[in-house]
Amino acid sequence: MMCNTSDSSGVSNSGESSKESSRCSTPVQDADRTDRLRDKMKRRIESGDHWFSLEFFPPRTASGAVNLISRFDRMGSGGPLFIDVTWHPAGDPGSDKETSSMMIASTAVNYCGLESVLHLTCCNQTKEKITAHLNKAKRLGLKNIMALRGDPIGEDWVEEDGGFNYATDLVKHIRCECDDYFDICVAGYPTGHPEAESYDEDLRHLKEKVDAGAHFIVTQLFFRAETFLKFVKDCRAIGITCPILPGIFPIQGYHSLRQLVKLSKLEVPEEIMQVIEPIKDNDAAIRSYGIQQAVEMCKVLLASGEVPGLHFYTLNREVATIEVLRQLGLWAEDPRRPLPWAVSAHPKRKVEDVRPIFWASRPKSYIYRTQDWDDFPNGRWGNSSSPAFGELTDYYLFYLKSKSPKEALLQMWGEELMNEESVYEVFTNYITGQTNPSGHKVMCLPWNDDPLAPETNLLKDELEKVNCRGVLTINSQPNINGKPSSDPIVGWGPAGGYVFQKAYLEFFTSSENVTALLQVLKKYEPRVNYHIVNVQGKNITNAHEMQPNAVTWGIFPGREIIQPTVVDPVSFMYWKDEAFALWIEQWAKLYEDESPSRMIIQYIHDNYFLINLVDNDFPLDSCLWQVIEDMFTLLDSPPETQEEGSQS
Amino acid sequence: MMCNTSDSSGVSNSGESSKESSRCSTPVQDADRTDRLRDKMKRRIESGDHWFSLEFFPPRTASGAVNLISRFDRMGSGGPLFIDVTWHPAGDPGSDKETSSMMIASTAVNYCGLESVLHLTCCNQTKEKITAHLNKAKRLGLKNIMALRGDPIGEDWVEEDGGFNYATDLVKHIRCECDDYFDICVAGYPTGHPEAESYDEDLRHLKEKVDAGAHFIVTQLFFRAETFLKFVKDCRAIGITCPILPGIFPIQGYHSLRQLVKLSKLEVPEEIMQVIEPIKDNDAAIRSYGIQQAVEMCKVLLASGEVPGLHFYTLNREVATIEVLRQLGLWAEDPRRPLPWAVSAHPKRKVEDVRPIFWASRPKSYIYRTQDWDDFPNGRWGNSSSPAFGELTDYYLFYLKSKSPKEALLQMWGEELMNEESVYEVFTNYITGQTNPSGHKVMCLPWNDDPLAPETNLLKDELEKVNCRGVLTINSQPNINGKPSSDPIVGWGPAGGYVFQKAYLEFFTSSENVTALLQVLKKYEPRVNYHIVNVQGKNITNAHEMQPNAVTWGIFPGREIIQPTVVDPVSFMYWKDEAFALWIEQWAKLYEDESPSRMIIQYIHDNYFLINLVDNDFPLDSCLWQVIEDMFTLLDSPPETQEEGSQS
Repeated sequence: MMCNTSDSSGVSNSGESSKESSRCSTPVQDADRTDRLRDKMKRRIESGDHWFSLEFFPPRTASGAVNLISRFDRMGSGGPLFIDVTWHPAGDPGSDKETSSMMIASTAVNYCGLESVLHLTCCNQTKEKITAHLNKAKRLGLKNIMALRGDPIGEDWVEEDGGFNYATDLVKHIRCECDDYFDICVAGYPTGHPEAESYDEDLRHLKEKVDAGAHFIVTQLFFRAETFLKFVKDCRAIGITCPILPGIFPIQGYHSLRQLVKLSKLEVPEEIMQVIEPIKDNDAAIRSYGIQQAVEMCKVLLASGEVPGLHFYTLNREVATIEVLRQLGLWAEDPRRPLPWAVSAHPKRKVEDVRPIFWASRPKSYIYRTQDWDDFPNGRWGNSSSPAFGELTDYYLFYLKSKSPKEALLQMWGEELMNEESVYEVFTNYITGQTNPSGHKVMCLPWNDDPLAPETNLLKDELEKVNCRGVLTINSQPNINGKPSSDPIVGWGPAGGYVFQKAYLEFFTSSENVTALLQVLKKYEPRVNYHIVNVQGKNITNAHEMQPNAVTWGIFPGREIIQPTVVDPVSFMYWKDEAFALWIEQWAKLYEDESPSRMIIQYIHDNYFLINLVDNDFPLDSCLWQVIEDMFTLLDSPPETQEEGSQS
Repeated sequence: MMCNTSDSSGVSNSGESSKESSRCSTPVQDADRTDRLRDKMKRRIESGDHWFSLEFFPPRTASGAVNLISRFDRMGSGGPLFIDVTWHPAGDPGSDKETSSMMIASTAVNYCGLESVLHLTCCNQTKEKITAHLNKAKRLGLKNIMALRGDPIGEDWVEEDGGFNYATDLVKHIRCECDDYFDICVAGYPTGHPEAESYDEDLRHLKEKVDAGAHFIVTQLFFRAETFLKFVKDCRAIGITCPILPGIFPIQGYHSLRQLVKLSKLEVPEEIMQVIEPIKDNDAAIRSYGIQQAVEMCKVLLASGEVPGLHFYTLNREVATIEVLRQLGLWAEDPRRPLPWAVSAHPKRKVEDVRPIFWASRPKSYIYRTQDWDDFPNGRWGNSSSPAFGELTDYYLFYLKSKSPKEALLQMWGEELMNEESVYEVFTNYITGQTNPSGHKVMCLPWNDDPLAPETNLLKDELEKVNCRGVLTINSQPNINGKPSSDPIVGWGPAGGYVFQKAYLEFFTSSENVTALLQVLKKYEPRVNYHIVNVQGKNITNAHEMQPNAVTWGIFPGREIIQPTVVDPVSFMYWKDEAFALWIEQWAKLYEDESPSRMIIQYIHDNYFLINLVDNDFPLDSCLWQVIEDMFTLLDSPPETQEEGSQS
């Protein structure tokens, strides 16, 4: 296979070049040296810190994709070293469809912040097509490929001259085309590949794949620890030195087991069949057995000292795998957050450490709208980093889309709205977690796809009080004056540090309320900064028009200050468009054109203001609740008193 | 006068261009629009906030220059809007000599952070020479010129065709050559220029100067408020609208008054001569009268509403002027520090807001060694800002030089040193402020040109204890956990904020002490970060090799976090060279070659280590004193215990 050296050298130079300066710039840690998956594995092996990884397959439908992405978020919080996404040539896996392997893996990296491995099969593919897939993967921020032959199952298959006949060919092609850009994983077969002439011949093939440039091995599933341990021993004996990760398959049901065994041509050991056959109609019993069996096998594997990490075949389900990991003590119950928001795993964004607070509940939307930025704010927001946000396009609506189907949304937010107060009730029920008159809990709002965050829960009573009176809160945080970075609710960042916050409150409210609020806010100058804007962009503020206000920051041993969240006046105007659009796109459109319900939401959209308030005096109790209280007091007072208020 | 348009357009584009980015960058406030002297005046006039300015002349000797720069620092702390430096053609005023007008004004801007106006006279000068002066002034960061004709006193003077005959010609030349780059000041004569044909003709000349492009007027001195107020009225009547600042001359002595009057051809009013003549031999009485007379006149001027600011002819003295300003309430008793260190006024450095802590007592040396940087750290140090520091060159030794003459230094630091303990005593006496055996107070050390800072005074008792045992401290700060930014000792930055510090300690100590210290420091991991280095560069640290540690930071309303001081591992190695060099350059060289005193200092230089310690746990009481205490305890214990210590 000829290597086009000019291509490959271009590829190897694709890292960011440092900015010109008369000073020598601080040697930034090279992404390709310390953050690569192979290096992470190396460090974990050296420190004896076992890891796990999770395999998923691409979903069939768009709503399946939304669900899988939520699953990535939930399972990502357990601390997998990486996830991988399988590749099915029949399913247009390299396309731009929401459900393609390529897009799912890209979403895992970019939006869920997960180190991801994209499967790629080469059987019956042209070099050009494979190269195009690789280039696209690079463009999307993917850094790891699982190189597979792909199974022409059940068909007569003939080797092609000069084509891709084996995974080895694909490994060589990746190394030739992309130099050392990708970390490459290959598959190992503890009982030998079903099509291989012999176990020994299969081992030799594996050695070839590794010699061609693979960095680690993930094995096919197996049912006995000794099967895997013998396999590792045999691999080492013929000189395979890279990490070998056992593929773990917790049995989750009788039929899925049989299906899998058939496809993979594996034999289920007698001792397992003997347990399962008698309970084959009892799903719960089988699942429970599957968990127990996997845990016991994993314990033996980990105890052997030969296994640095476990690879789970999840079948896109989470319960069994999480339970196994919990019992093994590998599930991170309190995952350390490096920043208060989920960091994207795209290499371009690795220095990013400041974001506007507005997208706190919609991080994927923020990542989507900033995906075209060439560099990201690092250290401070104001430093040449004001935003050119992506437009609210149609494709973008995918990320606007709720996880819940229309019926569920109507049940939560009301089949029929009577007036603005009906809307206040929806917000209030979301805060309190109480069921609404039709007996449903409000689990999400257009601005919050998930129930209240634990941190926001600290403010629950206050939030309830103001929402039921028409201060419709969509984002808030309490003030924090130096809690340890290990705090289970508000902590983030390295150990031994302290985190701080200014109290923040963001809400929609009527123009009548805004008139009173502005009156009241005069008393809180300069302690409280505010931005008040309506959908037309009428903007009232007492803040500097360009200066961001840091509202979350942390102090850590041996580090510069980190200030990951700011209230930025410029990006608030972009957020405003999104926040108002959500009223229409997610809520109003549930109802018929011209229906009273739709007109109520449209009225709010057209007439309410979006307000954010920051209490700068973080060491004192937040005054923001008092501000709202004062507003209501002023509104409740007779008109002449309100006039006097303006003069006092 | 022809205007070379290509030149002037080049000049007008000399602002910094914004960095390329796919995002639109935050519109930075344009230096030339908001930070110009004319704009500062405009804002102060609008807010009714009276200002003062101070005139100095260049010194004759290098030690005079060192003294004048100290005076700039002291008088700068009173909050002048600007200072100006006079220009004497006979004294080579545009040269690179330490004493030239050009270098003195440059020092005021760059090292003392003072807005400065450089005088420039044009009489008998070629255009080329004037242009060269202007270009040099720009290069040095000067932004304001006082355009004067210059007096060919006592000589027969003939107008030159096409030459510089009047200040107006110079104003036109500056505007023609440099477009709008400089703010231009011109002189006004309340009683008419002595050479003018009439008061009215002189007023017309002044109008011409302003029309040619001057931005404000400073007047010659005068003795009666009504003289100035009539002058202002007459100026306004003929259409002069720019600010007119009265020149105030507090009478400081009989002879200096007569000398000045002779040179300026002014008449001292009868009522003043009647007071002064009888007390002409009583300097104290004349000074006291001068202050009283100036205060009363200034009160009338300020009360008139015609005077936005007062311009003082200081004669390079400070007592009288400061006293007048104090009595007028214009002297800033508690000047707000925008940052904990003095900000340079060079336009290039205006965004600078992070520095290493090491040069805290030697800010001028830091500015000198970083003068060639193209841009400065803003927001964080680590962000592309690692240092290429200027070398320790000969010229640089000017800034290394102490204010005190050799004799005074020997009196403070010892005519003869007996041993290392004699050195410990010098450090201890500096801390305590007690007199040494020869009856002198130690007012400075090679690393600290001034007595102990008020902040360091907070640590006095602890510092005394460790210095007398050979922990020779040269820099320290206490931990601060959120004091108001208005705190008189540790406060800085805008009102309504909170400032924080990590405890810091930097000292020289023997290698024996370092051995014990390293033992002890194991107990303080990871709370304490340390860097330990000797003159050869042997470097022991537990800190990240590239990561700076923020040790001073502040949180302010509506702003991002400011972290003006860091411990940066890379620049510590540059500082180390300077800190060790000071032992030799400033101390050892006071003594004869081969003398025991010199050899003692040389021994310390060759064998001691320079150590810095940071206690990262800023909310707790500093543990750094306990670290030192533990070190002494370990050193005092029997050798076998020390061995055990290493195992515990």
